[in-house]
Amino acid sequence: MKSTVAIVGVGLIGGSLGQALRRTGRYRVIGISRKSATIVRAKRLSAIDEGYTELSGVRTADIVVICNPVDLIAPTVAQLVPYLKTGALVTDAGSVKGSILKSIAPLAHAGQVNFVGSHPLAGSHKTGVNAARFDLYHGSTVVVVPLGKSRLKPIEALWKAVGARVVRLSADDHDEAVALISHLPHLIAHALVASVLRRKDRGLLARLMAGSFRDATRVASADPEQWAQIFSANRGAVRQALRDFRRELKALENHLSSSSLSKRLLPTQQYRLSLFRDH
Amino acid sequence: MKSTVAIVGVGLIGGSLGQALRRTGRYRVIGISRKSATIVRAKRLSAIDEGYTELSGVRTADIVVICNPVDLIAPTVAQLVPYLKTGALVTDAGSVKGSILKSIAPLAHAGQVNFVGSHPLAGSHKTGVNAARFDLYHGSTVVVVPLGKSRLKPIEALWKAVGARVVRLSADDHDEAVALISHLPHLIAHALVASVLRRKDRGLLARLMAGSFRDATRVASADPEQWAQIFSANRGAVRQALRDFRRELKALENHLSSSSLSKRLLPTQQYRLSLFRDH
Repeated sequence: MKSTVAIVGVGLIGGSLGQALRRTGRYRVIGISRKSATIVRAKRLSAIDEGYTELSGVRTADIVVICNPVDLIAPTVAQLVPYLKTGALVTDAGSVKGSILKSIAPLAHAGQVNFVGSHPLAGSHKTGVNAARFDLYHGSTVVVVPLGKSRLKPIEALWKAVGARVVRLSADDHDEAVALISHLPHLIAHALVASVLRRKDRGLLARLMAGSFRDATRVASADPEQWAQIFSANRGAVRQALRDFRRELKALENHLSSSSLSKRLLPTQQYRLSLFRDH
Repeated sequence: MKSTVAIVGVGLIGGSLGQALRRTGRYRVIGISRKSATIVRAKRLSAIDEGYTELSGVRTADIVVICNPVDLIAPTVAQLVPYLKTGALVTDAGSVKGSILKSIAPLAHAGQVNFVGSHPLAGSHKTGVNAARFDLYHGSTVVVVPLGKSRLKPIEALWKAVGARVVRLSADDHDEAVALISHLPHLIAHALVASVLRRKDRGLLARLMAGSFRDATRVASADPEQWAQIFSANRGAVRQALRDFRRELKALENHLSSSSLSKRLLPTQQYRLSLFRDH
Protein backbone atom coordinates (compact mmCIF):
# COMPACT_ATOMS: atom_id res chain seq x y z
CA MET A 1 0.00 0.00 0.00
CA LYS A 2 1.15 3.51 -0.79
CA SER A 3 2.22 5.92 1.94
CA THR A 4 0.57 9.31 1.81
CA VAL A 5 2.90 12.31 1.94
CA ALA A 6 1.60 15.85 2.36
CA ILE A 7 3.89 18.60 1.10
CA VAL A 8 3.25 22.01 2.63
CA GLY A 9 4.65 24.67 0.29
CA VAL A 10 4.83 23.48 -3.30
CA GLY A 11 7.71 25.49 -4.77
CA LEU A 12 11.03 24.31 -6.21
CA ILE A 13 11.86 22.14 -3.17
CA GLY A 14 8.35 20.80 -2.50
CA GLY A 15 7.43 20.41 -6.15
CA SER A 16 10.61 18.50 -7.00
CA LEU A 17 10.04 16.21 -4.01
CA GLY A 18 6.45 15.55 -5.11
CA GLN A 19 7.50 14.72 -8.67
CA ALA A 20 10.22 12.35 -7.44
CA LEU A 21 8.00 10.61 -4.86
CA ARG A 22 5.18 10.06 -7.36
CA ARG A 23 7.61 8.52 -9.85
CA THR A 24 8.57 5.80 -7.33
CA GLY A 25 4.98 4.50 -7.41
CA ARG A 26 5.14 4.07 -3.64
CA TYR A 27 3.79 7.41 -2.47
CA ARG A 28 0.56 9.31 -2.88
CA VAL A 29 1.30 13.03 -2.73
CA ILE A 30 -0.94 15.77 -1.35
CA GLY A 31 0.06 19.39 -1.98
CA ILE A 32 -0.83 22.28 0.31
CA SER A 33 -0.47 25.83 -0.91
CA ARG A 34 -2.31 29.03 0.00
CA LYS A 35 -2.53 29.81 -3.69
CA SER A 36 -4.98 27.70 -5.68
CA ALA A 37 -3.06 28.62 -8.88
CA THR A 38 -0.01 26.83 -7.44
CA ILE A 39 -2.12 23.71 -6.78
CA VAL A 40 -3.35 23.73 -10.39
CA ARG A 41 0.18 24.22 -11.71
CA ALA A 42 1.63 21.52 -9.41
CA LYS A 43 -0.94 19.00 -10.64
CA ARG A 44 -0.16 19.85 -14.25
CA LEU A 45 3.55 19.33 -13.52
CA SER A 46 2.83 15.90 -11.95
CA ALA A 47 4.12 17.13 -8.61
CA ILE A 48 0.98 16.20 -6.62
CA ASP A 49 -2.00 13.85 -6.80
CA GLU A 50 -4.36 16.23 -5.05
CA GLY A 51 -4.10 19.64 -3.47
CA TYR A 52 -5.64 21.88 -0.83
CA THR A 53 -5.35 25.53 0.10
CA GLU A 54 -5.85 24.78 3.83
CA LEU A 55 -3.57 22.96 6.28
CA SER A 56 -6.46 20.63 7.14
CA GLY A 57 -5.59 18.90 3.87
CA VAL A 58 -2.87 16.94 5.73
CA ARG A 59 -5.49 14.80 7.59
CA THR A 60 -4.77 11.59 5.69
CA ALA A 61 -0.98 11.98 5.55
CA ASP A 62 1.45 9.49 7.09
CA ILE A 63 4.28 11.96 6.56
CA VAL A 64 4.10 15.75 6.30
CA VAL A 65 7.05 17.59 4.71
CA ILE A 66 7.11 21.34 5.35
CA CYS A 67 8.84 23.09 2.46
CA ASN A 68 8.14 26.63 3.60
CA PRO A 69 10.80 29.33 4.08
CA VAL A 70 12.83 28.92 7.29
CA ASP A 71 10.92 31.49 9.40
CA LEU A 72 7.57 29.81 8.67
CA ILE A 73 8.51 26.21 9.49
CA ALA A 74 8.01 26.18 13.29
CA PRO A 75 4.78 28.26 13.14
CA THR A 76 3.42 25.91 10.46
CA VAL A 77 4.16 22.86 12.64
CA ALA A 78 2.19 24.45 15.49
CA GLN A 79 -0.75 25.19 13.18
CA LEU A 80 -0.72 21.61 11.84
CA VAL A 81 -1.19 19.96 15.24
CA PRO A 82 -5.02 19.82 15.16
CA TYR A 83 -5.03 18.09 11.77
CA LEU A 84 -2.32 15.44 12.16
CA LYS A 85 -3.32 11.78 11.92
CA THR A 86 -2.32 9.66 14.94
CA GLY A 87 1.26 8.51 14.44
CA ALA A 88 1.93 10.91 11.58
CA LEU A 89 5.54 12.07 11.20
CA VAL A 90 6.41 15.67 10.36
CA THR A 91 9.66 16.84 8.81
CA ASP A 92 10.89 19.92 6.95
CA ALA A 93 13.41 20.96 4.31
CA GLY A 94 14.88 24.04 5.99
CA SER A 95 18.53 25.09 5.61
CA VAL A 96 18.92 25.71 9.35
CA LYS A 97 18.09 23.21 12.08
CA GLY A 98 18.97 24.53 15.56
CA SER A 99 16.50 27.41 15.80
CA ILE A 100 13.71 25.38 14.17
CA LEU A 101 14.10 22.34 16.42
CA LYS A 102 14.33 24.57 19.48
CA SER A 103 10.94 26.08 18.64
CA ILE A 104 9.33 22.72 17.95
CA ALA A 105 10.84 20.82 20.91
CA PRO A 106 8.14 21.84 23.45
CA LEU A 107 5.37 20.54 21.15
CA ALA A 108 7.30 17.32 20.58
CA HIS A 109 7.98 16.76 24.28
CA ALA A 110 4.29 17.33 24.98
CA GLY A 111 3.48 14.53 22.52
CA GLN A 112 1.62 16.85 20.14
CA VAL A 113 3.86 16.21 17.15
CA ASN A 114 6.43 13.64 16.01
CA PHE A 115 9.08 15.76 14.33
CA VAL A 116 12.37 14.94 12.58
CA GLY A 117 14.47 17.70 11.01
CA SER A 118 15.57 17.35 7.39
CA HIS A 119 17.81 19.43 5.17
CA PRO A 120 18.22 18.34 1.56
CA LEU A 121 21.49 19.84 0.29
CA ALA A 122 20.15 20.47 -3.16
CA GLY A 123 18.49 23.42 -4.72
CA SER A 124 18.94 26.18 -7.17
CA HIS A 125 18.96 29.95 -7.24
CA LYS A 126 15.57 29.54 -8.93
CA THR A 127 12.33 29.34 -7.00
CA GLY A 128 8.74 28.29 -7.59
CA VAL A 129 7.04 25.13 -8.74
CA ASN A 130 7.79 25.91 -12.39
CA ALA A 131 11.48 25.30 -11.61
CA ALA A 132 10.72 21.86 -10.09
CA ARG A 133 12.80 18.91 -11.35
CA PHE A 134 12.07 15.27 -10.54
CA ASP A 135 15.84 14.58 -10.33
CA LEU A 136 16.73 17.46 -7.98
CA TYR A 137 17.56 15.11 -5.09
CA HIS A 138 19.18 12.37 -7.14
CA GLY A 139 22.74 11.92 -5.86
CA SER A 140 22.32 14.68 -3.28
CA THR A 141 22.85 14.48 0.46
CA VAL A 142 20.06 14.99 2.99
CA VAL A 143 20.88 15.67 6.62
CA VAL A 144 18.38 14.18 9.06
CA VAL A 145 18.29 15.53 12.63
CA PRO A 146 16.56 13.50 15.39
CA LEU A 147 14.22 15.19 17.88
CA GLY A 148 13.18 13.28 20.98
CA LYS A 149 12.05 9.76 20.17
CA SER A 150 10.48 10.41 16.77
CA ARG A 151 11.02 7.55 14.33
CA LEU A 152 13.72 8.37 11.78
CA LYS A 153 13.31 5.37 9.47
CA PRO A 154 10.24 6.50 7.45
CA ILE A 155 11.80 9.95 6.92
CA GLU A 156 15.14 8.46 5.85
CA ALA A 157 13.32 6.02 3.55
CA LEU A 158 11.49 8.93 1.91
CA TRP A 159 14.73 10.76 1.08
CA LYS A 160 16.41 7.57 -0.09
CA ALA A 161 13.40 6.86 -2.33
CA VAL A 162 14.14 10.06 -4.25
CA GLY A 163 17.79 9.15 -4.73
CA ALA A 164 19.48 10.98 -1.84
CA ARG A 165 22.14 9.80 0.59
CA VAL A 166 21.17 10.35 4.22
CA VAL A 167 23.53 11.66 6.92
CA ARG A 168 22.36 11.82 10.55
CA LEU A 169 23.66 14.80 12.51
CA SER A 170 22.83 16.84 15.61
CA ALA A 171 21.29 20.26 14.94
CA ASP A 172 24.46 22.03 16.14
CA ASP A 173 26.78 19.95 13.98
CA HIS A 174 24.52 20.53 10.99
CA ASP A 175 24.35 24.28 11.48
CA GLU A 176 28.10 24.63 11.95
CA ALA A 177 28.78 22.59 8.80
CA VAL A 178 26.34 24.42 6.51
CA ALA A 179 27.46 27.81 7.83
CA LEU A 180 30.87 27.05 6.33
CA ILE A 181 30.04 25.14 3.16
CA SER A 182 26.83 26.89 2.12
CA HIS A 183 25.90 30.05 4.03
CA LEU A 184 29.42 31.52 3.85
CA PRO A 185 29.70 31.09 0.04
CA HIS A 186 26.30 32.80 -0.29
CA LEU A 187 27.40 35.75 1.85
CA ILE A 188 30.70 36.01 -0.05
CA ALA A 189 28.82 36.04 -3.36
CA HIS A 190 26.78 39.04 -2.21
CA ALA A 191 29.88 40.87 -0.93
CA LEU A 192 31.67 40.28 -4.26
CA VAL A 193 28.74 41.60 -6.27
CA ALA A 194 28.45 44.56 -3.88
CA SER A 195 32.15 45.36 -4.43
CA VAL A 196 31.43 45.78 -8.14
CA LEU A 197 28.00 47.42 -7.80
CA ARG A 198 29.54 50.21 -5.70
CA ARG A 199 32.01 51.20 -8.43
CA LYS A 200 31.47 53.88 -11.04
CA ASP A 201 33.24 51.76 -13.69
CA ARG A 202 30.97 48.76 -13.12
CA GLY A 203 29.88 48.84 -16.77
CA LEU A 204 33.46 48.24 -17.85
CA LEU A 205 33.96 45.59 -15.15
CA ALA A 206 30.88 43.75 -16.41
CA ARG A 207 32.40 43.57 -19.90
CA LEU A 208 35.57 42.02 -18.47
CA MET A 209 33.92 39.42 -16.25
CA ALA A 210 34.77 35.82 -17.04
CA GLY A 211 34.14 32.44 -15.43
CA SER A 212 35.74 33.10 -12.05
CA PHE A 213 33.46 36.01 -11.13
CA ARG A 214 30.40 34.36 -12.68
CA ASP A 215 30.82 31.15 -10.70
CA ALA A 216 31.87 32.83 -7.44
CA THR A 217 28.71 34.97 -7.47
CA ARG A 218 26.12 32.59 -8.95
CA VAL A 219 24.26 32.07 -5.68
CA ALA A 220 23.82 35.82 -5.13
CA SER A 221 20.91 35.38 -7.57
CA ALA A 222 18.99 33.36 -4.98
CA ASP A 223 15.91 34.81 -3.29
CA PRO A 224 16.94 37.60 -0.84
CA GLU A 225 13.99 37.08 1.50
CA GLN A 226 14.67 33.34 1.94
CA TRP A 227 18.40 33.89 2.41
CA ALA A 228 17.97 36.75 4.90
CA GLN A 229 15.97 34.27 7.01
CA ILE A 230 18.66 31.59 6.72
CA PHE A 231 21.56 33.95 7.55
CA SER A 232 19.70 35.38 10.50
CA ALA A 233 18.55 32.00 11.89
CA ASN A 234 22.14 30.67 11.73
CA ARG A 235 24.00 33.89 12.51
CA GLY A 236 26.10 32.48 15.35
CA ALA A 237 27.63 29.73 13.21
CA VAL A 238 27.88 32.07 10.19
CA ARG A 239 29.91 34.57 12.26
CA GLN A 240 32.29 31.79 13.33
CA ALA A 241 32.69 30.66 9.71
CA LEU A 242 33.36 34.28 8.69
CA ARG A 243 36.09 34.56 11.36
CA ASP A 244 37.81 31.40 10.09
CA PHE A 245 37.50 32.49 6.46
CA ARG A 246 38.90 35.97 7.20
CA ARG A 247 41.89 34.42 8.95
CA GLU A 248 42.66 32.26 5.90
CA LEU A 249 42.21 35.21 3.53
CA LYS A 250 44.51 37.40 5.67
CA ALA A 251 47.16 34.66 5.72
CA LEU A 252 47.10 34.57 1.92
CA GLU A 253 47.25 38.38 1.71
CA ASN A 254 50.29 38.42 4.00
CA HIS A 255 52.09 36.15 1.57
CA LEU A 256 51.09 37.84 -1.70
CA SER A 257 54.64 38.80 -2.53
CA SER A 258 56.32 35.92 -0.74
CA SER A 259 58.34 33.37 -2.67
CA SER A 260 56.47 30.70 -0.71
CA LEU A 261 53.05 31.76 -2.10
CA SER A 262 52.81 28.96 -4.64
CA LYS A 263 53.71 26.44 -1.92
CA ARG A 264 50.85 27.87 0.17
CA LEU A 265 48.37 27.52 -2.72
CA LEU A 266 49.40 23.96 -3.52
CA PRO A 267 47.59 22.12 -0.66
CA THR A 268 44.30 23.96 -1.31
CA GLN A 269 44.60 23.30 -5.06
CA GLN A 270 45.27 19.61 -4.42
CA TYR A 271 42.43 19.34 -1.91
CA ARG A 272 40.01 21.12 -4.29
CA LEU A 273 40.96 18.72 -7.08
CA SER A 274 40.24 15.79 -4.77
CA LEU A 275 36.79 17.18 -3.85
CA PHE A 276 35.25 17.66 -7.27
CA ARG A 277 36.24 15.88 -10.41
CA ASP A 278 36.48 18.33 -13.29
CA HIS A 279 34.14 20.98 -11.86
CA MET B 1 48.49 36.49 -48.24
CA LYS B 2 48.49 34.88 -44.83
CA SER B 3 50.03 36.61 -41.82
CA THR B 4 52.52 34.55 -39.89
CA VAL B 5 51.93 34.34 -36.13
CA ALA B 6 54.47 32.80 -33.78
CA ILE B 7 53.09 31.54 -30.48
CA VAL B 8 55.68 31.22 -27.73
CA GLY B 9 54.39 28.74 -25.15
CA VAL B 10 51.92 26.28 -26.62
CA GLY B 11 49.71 25.34 -23.65
CA LEU B 12 45.98 25.87 -23.15
CA ILE B 13 46.12 29.58 -24.04
CA GLY B 14 48.65 29.35 -26.89
CA GLY B 15 47.29 26.09 -28.30
CA SER B 16 43.69 27.35 -28.34
CA LEU B 17 44.83 30.54 -30.09
CA GLY B 18 46.73 28.52 -32.69
CA GLN B 19 43.75 26.28 -33.40
CA ALA B 20 41.43 29.27 -33.77
CA LEU B 21 43.83 31.28 -35.97
CA ARG B 22 44.45 28.34 -38.30
CA ARG B 23 40.71 27.78 -38.72
CA THR B 24 40.28 31.31 -40.09
CA GLY B 25 42.48 30.40 -43.05
CA ARG B 26 44.17 33.79 -42.73
CA TYR B 27 47.07 32.93 -40.46
CA ARG B 28 50.07 30.62 -40.64
CA VAL B 29 50.97 29.54 -37.11
CA ILE B 30 54.44 28.77 -35.77
CA GLY B 31 54.72 27.21 -32.32
CA ILE B 32 57.67 27.64 -30.00
CA SER B 33 58.11 25.33 -27.03
CA ARG B 34 61.17 24.15 -25.19
CA LYS B 35 59.72 20.64 -25.24
CA SER B 36 59.73 18.88 -28.61
CA ALA B 37 56.95 16.58 -27.35
CA THR B 38 54.70 19.64 -27.03
CA ILE B 39 55.48 20.62 -30.64
CA VAL B 40 54.54 17.15 -31.83
CA ARG B 41 51.34 17.19 -29.79
CA ALA B 42 50.41 20.72 -30.92
CA LYS B 43 50.79 19.71 -34.58
CA ARG B 44 48.62 16.66 -34.02
CA LEU B 45 45.96 18.89 -32.39
CA SER B 46 46.03 21.28 -35.39
CA ALA B 47 47.26 24.10 -33.14
CA ILE B 48 50.36 24.95 -35.25
CA ASP B 49 51.67 24.58 -38.80
CA GLU B 50 55.28 24.19 -37.76
CA GLY B 51 57.21 24.27 -34.53
CA TYR B 52 60.61 25.02 -33.02
CA THR B 53 62.25 24.44 -29.68
CA GLU B 54 64.31 27.67 -29.95
CA LEU B 55 63.17 31.31 -29.90
CA SER B 56 64.93 31.85 -33.23
CA GLY B 57 61.89 30.12 -34.76
CA VAL B 58 60.07 33.50 -34.67
CA ARG B 59 62.23 34.89 -37.54
CA THR B 60 59.48 34.87 -40.18
CA ALA B 61 56.66 36.02 -37.87
CA ASP B 62 54.67 39.22 -38.44
CA ILE B 63 53.18 38.88 -34.96
CA VAL B 64 54.61 37.09 -31.93
CA VAL B 65 52.22 36.15 -29.10
CA ILE B 66 53.92 35.23 -25.84
CA CYS B 67 51.74 32.78 -23.94
CA ASN B 68 54.21 32.03 -21.16
CA PRO B 69 53.47 32.38 -17.42
CA VAL B 70 53.45 36.00 -16.20
CA ASP B 71 56.99 36.02 -14.72
CA LEU B 72 58.52 34.81 -17.99
CA ILE B 73 56.87 37.28 -20.37
CA ALA B 74 59.22 40.28 -20.05
CA PRO B 75 62.40 38.10 -20.03
CA THR B 76 61.14 36.29 -23.13
CA VAL B 77 60.57 39.59 -24.95
CA ALA B 78 64.17 40.59 -24.19
CA GLN B 79 65.45 37.25 -25.46
CA LEU B 80 63.40 37.56 -28.67
CA VAL B 81 64.91 40.89 -29.75
CA PRO B 82 67.75 39.44 -31.89
CA TYR B 83 65.34 37.26 -33.88
CA LEU B 84 62.46 39.67 -34.63
CA LYS B 85 61.72 40.54 -38.25
CA THR B 86 61.74 44.29 -39.01
CA GLY B 87 58.31 45.68 -38.15
CA ALA B 88 57.21 42.59 -36.27
CA LEU B 89 54.68 43.18 -33.48
CA VAL B 90 54.94 41.39 -30.15
CA THR B 91 52.08 40.87 -27.71
CA ASP B 92 51.35 38.56 -24.79
CA ALA B 93 48.44 36.88 -23.02
CA GLY B 94 49.37 37.62 -19.41
CA SER B 95 46.78 38.26 -16.69
CA VAL B 96 48.68 41.30 -15.36
CA LYS B 97 49.78 44.26 -17.46
CA GLY B 98 51.46 47.00 -15.34
CA SER B 99 54.55 45.11 -14.17
CA ILE B 100 55.06 43.49 -17.59
CA LEU B 101 54.78 46.72 -19.57
CA LYS B 102 57.07 48.49 -17.09
CA SER B 103 59.76 45.90 -17.74
CA ILE B 104 59.36 46.03 -21.51
CA ALA B 105 59.04 49.86 -21.83
CA PRO B 106 62.82 50.54 -21.99
CA LEU B 107 63.23 48.08 -24.89
CA ALA B 108 60.24 49.60 -26.66
CA HIS B 109 61.45 53.19 -26.19
CA ALA B 110 64.86 52.15 -27.53
CA GLY B 111 63.13 50.90 -30.68
CA GLN B 112 64.16 47.28 -30.10
CA VAL B 113 60.65 45.90 -29.94
CA ASN B 114 57.11 46.93 -30.92
CA PHE B 115 55.01 45.69 -28.04
CA VAL B 116 51.28 45.79 -27.29
CA GLY B 117 49.90 44.19 -24.13
CA SER B 118 47.02 41.70 -24.42
CA HIS B 119 44.94 39.87 -21.85
CA PRO B 120 42.34 37.45 -23.14
CA LEU B 121 39.73 37.04 -20.37
CA ALA B 122 39.18 33.41 -21.09
CA GLY B 123 40.77 30.30 -19.74
CA SER B 124 40.17 27.33 -17.57
CA HIS B 125 41.55 25.76 -14.42
CA LYS B 126 43.08 23.22 -16.82
CA THR B 127 46.51 23.68 -18.38
CA GLY B 128 48.52 22.25 -21.25
CA VAL B 129 48.00 21.92 -24.97
CA ASN B 130 45.81 18.83 -24.50
CA ALA B 131 43.17 21.13 -22.94
CA ALA B 132 43.26 23.46 -25.99
CA ARG B 133 39.88 24.37 -27.57
CA PHE B 134 39.48 26.23 -30.87
CA ASP B 135 36.47 28.10 -29.42
CA LEU B 136 38.12 29.25 -26.18
CA TYR B 137 38.09 32.92 -27.23
CA HIS B 138 34.76 32.89 -29.01
CA GLY B 139 32.56 35.50 -27.33
CA SER B 140 35.27 36.40 -24.81
CA THR B 141 36.75 39.82 -24.12
CA VAL B 142 40.40 40.66 -24.75
CA VAL B 143 41.94 43.74 -23.16
CA VAL B 144 44.56 45.43 -25.34
CA VAL B 145 47.01 47.84 -23.69
CA PRO B 146 49.01 50.30 -25.83
CA LEU B 147 52.75 50.82 -25.26
CA GLY B 148 54.46 53.81 -26.92
CA LYS B 149 53.56 54.08 -30.58
CA SER B 150 53.20 50.38 -31.39
CA ARG B 151 50.42 49.67 -33.89
CA LEU B 152 47.34 48.25 -32.19
CA LYS B 153 45.30 47.35 -35.29
CA PRO B 154 47.02 44.06 -36.28
CA ILE B 155 46.84 42.82 -32.67
CA GLU B 156 43.18 43.79 -32.33
CA ALA B 157 42.44 42.15 -35.70
CA LEU B 158 44.08 38.94 -34.47
CA TRP B 159 41.86 38.72 -31.38
CA LYS B 160 38.76 39.65 -33.36
CA ALA B 161 39.62 36.94 -35.88
CA VAL B 162 39.26 34.32 -33.12
CA GLY B 163 35.88 35.68 -32.06
CA ALA B 164 36.79 38.00 -29.18
CA ARG B 165 35.58 41.50 -28.37
CA VAL B 166 38.45 43.95 -27.85
CA VAL B 167 38.57 46.57 -25.08
CA ARG B 168 41.42 49.11 -24.98
CA LEU B 169 42.60 50.06 -21.49
CA SER B 170 45.63 51.53 -19.74
CA ALA B 171 47.74 49.04 -17.79
CA ASP B 172 46.62 50.53 -14.45
CA ASP B 173 42.92 50.43 -15.32
CA HIS B 174 43.31 46.85 -16.50
CA ASP B 175 45.12 45.71 -13.37
CA GLU B 176 42.62 47.38 -11.04
CA ALA B 177 39.69 45.80 -12.89
CA VAL B 178 41.05 42.25 -13.00
CA ALA B 179 42.16 42.44 -9.37
CA LEU B 180 38.49 42.77 -8.47
CA ILE B 181 36.73 40.55 -11.00
CA SER B 182 39.32 37.78 -11.38
CA HIS B 183 42.20 37.78 -8.91
CA LEU B 184 39.99 38.37 -5.87
CA PRO B 185 37.62 35.45 -6.70
CA HIS B 186 40.69 33.22 -7.09
CA LEU B 187 42.08 34.26 -3.71
CA ILE B 188 38.66 33.82 -2.07
CA ALA B 189 38.39 30.33 -3.56
CA HIS B 190 41.67 29.32 -1.91
CA ALA B 191 40.66 30.84 1.43
CA LEU B 192 37.34 28.98 1.35
CA VAL B 193 39.02 25.67 0.60
CA ALA B 194 41.61 26.38 3.31
CA SER B 195 38.82 27.01 5.84
CA VAL B 196 37.58 23.46 5.22
CA LEU B 197 40.98 21.80 4.84
CA ARG B 198 41.97 23.02 8.31
CA ARG B 199 39.04 21.31 10.02
CA LYS B 200 39.09 17.84 11.55
CA ASP B 201 35.54 17.14 10.31
CA ARG B 202 36.44 17.94 6.67
CA GLY B 203 35.39 14.42 5.59
CA LEU B 204 31.85 15.13 6.80
CA LEU B 205 31.90 18.62 5.28
CA ALA B 206 32.90 17.13 1.92
CA ARG B 207 29.84 14.86 2.00
CA LEU B 208 27.58 17.86 2.59
CA MET B 209 29.02 20.14 -0.10
CA ALA B 210 26.59 21.21 -2.80
CA GLY B 211 26.63 23.65 -5.70
CA SER B 212 27.43 26.83 -3.77
CA PHE B 213 30.75 25.59 -2.38
CA ARG B 214 31.66 23.79 -5.59
CA ASP B 215 31.16 26.88 -7.76
CA ALA B 216 32.70 29.33 -5.29
CA THR B 217 35.91 27.27 -5.15
CA ARG B 218 36.21 26.00 -8.74
CA VAL B 219 39.15 28.22 -9.64
CA ALA B 220 41.20 27.05 -6.64
CA SER B 221 41.95 24.07 -8.92
CA ALA B 222 44.02 26.31 -11.19
CA ASP B 223 47.81 25.99 -11.34
CA PRO B 224 49.34 27.34 -8.06
CA GLU B 225 52.64 28.37 -9.68
CA GLN B 226 50.92 30.48 -12.37
CA TRP B 227 48.55 32.07 -9.87
CA ALA B 228 51.25 32.87 -7.34
CA GLN B 229 52.94 34.84 -10.12
CA ILE B 230 49.72 36.69 -10.99
CA PHE B 231 48.85 37.55 -7.36
CA SER B 232 52.36 38.76 -6.68
CA ALA B 233 52.67 40.80 -9.88
CA ASN B 234 49.34 42.54 -9.14
CA ARG B 235 49.56 42.63 -5.35
CA GLY B 236 48.90 46.37 -5.00
CA ALA B 237 45.57 46.23 -6.82
CA VAL B 238 44.69 42.88 -5.21
CA ARG B 239 45.17 44.40 -1.74
CA GLN B 240 42.86 47.29 -2.63
CA ALA B 241 40.24 44.86 -3.95
CA LEU B 242 40.56 42.83 -0.74
CA ARG B 243 39.98 45.97 1.36
CA ASP B 244 36.81 46.82 -0.58
CA PHE B 245 35.56 43.23 -0.41
CA ARG B 246 36.19 43.00 3.35
CA ARG B 247 34.24 46.20 3.90
CA GLU B 248 31.24 44.80 2.01
CA LEU B 249 31.45 41.49 3.86
CA LYS B 250 31.65 43.28 7.23
CA ALA B 251 28.62 45.41 6.33
CA LEU B 252 26.63 42.24 5.63
CA GLU B 253 27.85 40.62 8.87
CA ASN B 254 26.75 43.66 10.86
CA HIS B 255 23.24 43.20 9.52
CA LEU B 256 22.94 39.41 9.87
CA SER B 257 20.15 39.69 12.42
CA SER B 258 18.71 42.96 11.19
CA SER B 259 15.19 43.11 9.80
CA SER B 260 16.65 45.10 6.89
CA LEU B 261 18.92 42.23 5.77
CA SER B 262 16.73 41.12 2.88
CA LYS B 263 16.51 44.74 1.69
CA ARG B 264 20.32 44.84 1.71
CA LEU B 265 20.57 41.63 -0.34
CA LEU B 266 18.02 42.75 -2.90
CA PRO B 267 20.20 45.18 -4.95
CA THR B 268 23.06 42.67 -5.23
CA GLN B 269 20.63 39.91 -6.22
CA GLN B 270 19.05 42.14 -8.86
CA TYR B 271 22.44 43.26 -10.17
CA ARG B 272 23.71 39.67 -10.33
CA LEU B 273 20.61 38.63 -12.27
CA SER B 274 21.26 41.46 -14.75
CA LEU B 275 24.91 40.39 -15.24
CA PHE B 276 24.47 36.75 -16.19
CA ARG B 277 21.40 35.21 -17.64
CA ASP B 278 20.62 31.91 -15.92
CA HIS B 279 24.17 31.16 -14.76
